[in-house]
Amino acid sequence: MAQLYGNAVVGQSGGPTTAINATLAGVIAGALECSAIGKIYGMRNGIEGLLEERLIDLNEIFEGDADKLEALKRTPAAALGSCRKKLPTPDKSDYEKTFEKLIEIFKKYDIRYFFYIGGNDSMDTVAKLSEYTKVCGYEMRIIGVPKTVDNDLKGTDHTPGFGSAAKFVSVIMQEIIKDTAVYTVPAVTIVEVMGRDAGWLTASAALGRIVTGEAPDLVYLPEREFDVEEFIADLKACLKKKPNVVVAVSEGIQCREGQSISTGASGRDVDAFGHKALSGTGKGLEMLVKERLGCKVRSIELNLPQRCGAHIASLCDINESFGVGRAAAHAAEQGVSREMMVIIRNNGEGEPYSSVFGHMDIELIANKTRLVPAHYINERGNNITDECLEYLLPLIEGECYPSYKNGLPEFFSFDK
Amino acid sequence: MAQLYGNAVVGQSGGPTTAINATLAGVIAGALECSAIGKIYGMRNGIEGLLEERLIDLNEIFEGDADKLEALKRTPAAALGSCRKKLPTPDKSDYEKTFEKLIEIFKKYDIRYFFYIGGNDSMDTVAKLSEYTKVCGYEMRIIGVPKTVDNDLKGTDHTPGFGSAAKFVSVIMQEIIKDTAVYTVPAVTIVEVMGRDAGWLTASAALGRIVTGEAPDLVYLPEREFDVEEFIADLKACLKKKPNVVVAVSEGIQCREGQSISTGASGRDVDAFGHKALSGTGKGLEMLVKERLGCKVRSIELNLPQRCGAHIASLCDINESFGVGRAAAHAAEQGVSREMMVIIRNNGEGEPYSSVFGHMDIELIANKTRLVPAHYINERGNNITDECLEYLLPLIEGECYPSYKNGLPEFFSFDK
Repeated sequence: MAQLYGNAVVGQSGGPTTAINATLAGVIAGALECSAIGKIYGMRNGIEGLLEERLIDLNEIFEGDADKLEALKRTPAAALGSCRKKLPTPDKSDYEKTFEKLIEIFKKYDIRYFFYIGGNDSMDTVAKLSEYTKVCGYEMRIIGVPKTVDNDLKGTDHTPGFGSAAKFVSVIMQEIIKDTAVYTVPAVTIVEVMGRDAGWLTASAALGRIVTGEAPDLVYLPEREFDVEEFIADLKACLKKKPNVVVAVSEGIQCREGQSISTGASGRDVDAFGHKALSGTGKGLEMLVKERLGCKVRSIELNLPQRCGAHIASLCDINESFGVGRAAAHAAEQGVSREMMVIIRNNGEGEPYSSVFGHMDIELIANKTRLVPAHYINERGNNITDECLEYLLPLIEGECYPSYKNGLPEFFSFDK
Repeated sequence: MAQLYGNAVVGQSGGPTTAINATLAGVIAGALECSAIGKIYGMRNGIEGLLEERLIDLNEIFEGDADKLEALKRTPAAALGSCRKKLPTPDKSDYEKTFEKLIEIFKKYDIRYFFYIGGNDSMDTVAKLSEYTKVCGYEMRIIGVPKTVDNDLKGTDHTPGFGSAAKFVSVIMQEIIKDTAVYTVPAVTIVEVMGRDAGWLTASAALGRIVTGEAPDLVYLPEREFDVEEFIADLKACLKKKPNVVVAVSEGIQCREGQSISTGASGRDVDAFGHKALSGTGKGLEMLVKERLGCKVRSIELNLPQRCGAHIASLCDINESFGVGRAAAHAAEQGVSREMMVIIRNNGEGEPYSSVFGHMDIELIANKTRLVPAHYINERGNNITDECLEYLLPLIEGECYPSYKNGLPEFFSFDK
C-alpha cells in the first residue's frame, strides 16, 4: 500500500481507566516513530472537542521528553479529557452537518490518521466515521484502540485498562478480608464491584483463591440470575463454617422474577447511550441480610477508585496498554483502517503468558458485549471456576507505581 | 529500678489499621532484645482471647526470622485478631471475677509484661488493668501502645496508623480528582471519609493543595457544625468557576439545629462503647445536592480500605509504628508502667521532620478525644488551613509496599 502522508489526531472517550493514558502515550510514541505521520494533535474531550477545534500540539509537548511520556503512562483517567458524545446516525437531522464539519477540520489540519481510544460506545464513533469517510471519499486511516475496565469488548482476549482495575479489586479484596477477619462476632461484608452487564471485574475479586488461599466466600455476577433465597441459604451455610463471610457482587446483578432488592437505581440518570447508572446493589443486599439474618453486616462500594487506582496498577496492563497504542500507530501507517486493535493471547498451554497485538474489523466489535461465559461460573452460580481465575491471573501480574514527591503521586497534566 | 524478670504478652484491640501489625512487629522485636523478658505470648482477639487463654508463642514464630517479622510489619489489620471487649468497672458484678481470672493467667504463664496496642477504648483497658494490679499487688509492667486511623488520642503528636490512612485518602483523592475532571458537564463528587468525632483524616484529603495543587474544593469536618444552606451556596460558587467540584466530608458531620440530611444512621448498630456506627453521610449529601442543584452528583464512601490499604502505606507511619512498639518493650524493661507510648515531634521550626518516642500517664489519655483545633479550620468552615496541612504532610512521607507474588501481596498470617 502507498504511504499516506499527513497529520494525526488522537482522542479519548468514555469512562476513564487507569490505563487509558498509557495507551495515549503509546499512540504518541508510535506516531513519533512513523515517518508518514507529521504532527500529532490531541483532541480535548474526544469527538466533542474535535468538533469545536479544541486541539493541542502533542509533538511540542512530548518530542524528546521521555520523562513526560513516562509520567503520562502512569497517570490515571483521560489526560486529554473525555466525552460521551455519540455521533448521529444517517436518519438524524444533524448527520450531514456533523460529518461535514469533521471533514472540514480534517482538511484544515491535514489530518489523515484518526486514533480513538475508548470502550464499546467509542467504537461506535470509529465505525460511523469509517463509514462516512469511505462514502465521501476522504482518504483517512481510522483506528479504534480499546479500553474499558469492564473487559466486555468482543474480539480481544481482554481490554486495556481491565488488568489494572482487576489488580485494584483483587488487592483491595485481600486487605478487606484481613480487615474483616479480626473479630470473632459473626459478620457479613458485601463488596460491590463495577460491572453493569459483565462480571469480569467481580470475578477478579476471587483471584486470591489460587494465589494466597484467601478469597471472598461467595461471588455473584450479572451473567446469572440472582436468587435472593439461594443467596440467604448460601450465607447461612458459610456462617456455619466461619464467623466472617465476605461476598463480592457485581453492581448489575438482576433478581429472579418476582424477587427484588432495593437498589436505589431509579434515582440515577440514564446516560447518553441509554444505560441506567446503577448504584446501591451492595447497600440493598446489606439491608436484606440485616433483615433476614440479623447479624452484623457492612457493604462496601469500591466505586471510582477501581478505575483510577493508578497507585497500584498492573504492570502487565500498563505495558500492554502502551504497546497496543504504539502498535495502532504503526498499523495505521502500514495501511490498516476501519479496525479496532486487539490483544491476542499468544502462549501455548502450560507456557508462561505472552501476548501480541492485532486488529479486526470494527463492524464486528462495535455495540456488542462480551459476557463471562457459562463455564467460568460454577453450577450454583455463587462463585467462579478455576479456569476463569487462570484466564484472569496473568492480567494482574506485576506492579506499576507512579513516582512520588512529598508523599503524593506526580501525575501528568496538560493544564499545568 | 530493679530488673523484673518474666514473660510478656501482647495484644491488639479495637478497629484494625494498616500499621497495627507494624507495632506488633516492633513490640516483638523489642521484647526479643530485652534480656529481662523471657517468652513473648500473643493473645488472640485481645483481652477477650486472653481471658480464654488463647495464647500463642511468638518467640517460636519470629525468633531468628527477620523476613517473617518484615512481612508482619507490612500486613494490614490485626494479625492476632482484635476485640471490642471493655473490662468491667468496680461497680459491675463481674469485676472481681474478670480481674482475678486475668491475674490467675498472668501467674500461670509468669507474665510480668503486658503490651496492649489499641485506640481510645483500648487505653481504658490498660488503665483498668494498671489500677487493679497496683491494688492487688501483682508486680507487672503495663504499657499501652496507641493506634488509630482517627488520630484522636491525646498526648501524642499523632497516632500510629493515622499516617497510612491519611496516605491512602490523600493519594486516592488525587486519583478521584483526575477521574472526575475528564468531562465538561457540571458535576459534584462527594467523598465521605472516616471520622466520627475528629476530622483529621478528612483534613488529609486536602494535602494535595500544598503538593500538587490539586485538592478537593470543599472540606467539611465534624468539629464544625454543618450548615446545609452554606454548603449549597459554597457548591454554587464553586460550580461557577469550574465544572467538576469535589467535596471531602467526614462521616460524622452534624447539622445545625433544625436542619438535617438523611444519614441512614438509625439502621446501624451501636457498638459496645455506645458509639453509633455512622454511614450514609455522603449518600445523604448526594441526594440533597441532586434535589437542590439538579446537577450530576456522585458520592464515594472510602470505607474500610482507608484503614487497611497496606498496598500504599506511609513509610513514615510504618517506621514509627514499628519504632514505638519496639520502644514500648525497652521502656517496660526499664521500669515504665501504667503509661501509653507517645510520638513527640522533635524538629525545630524550619527543620526537616523528625520524631522521638516517649510515654505518659495513661490516666491523662484514656477516654479522651483530641479534635482538630479551631485554627486548623478556615473561617467559613469549608476548608482547612495551610498550618494544618503542614502538620499533616510529613506523616504521609514515603511509600511502604508489601512484597508481591503472582500479582497479589504476600501478607503474614498466624493461621497458615
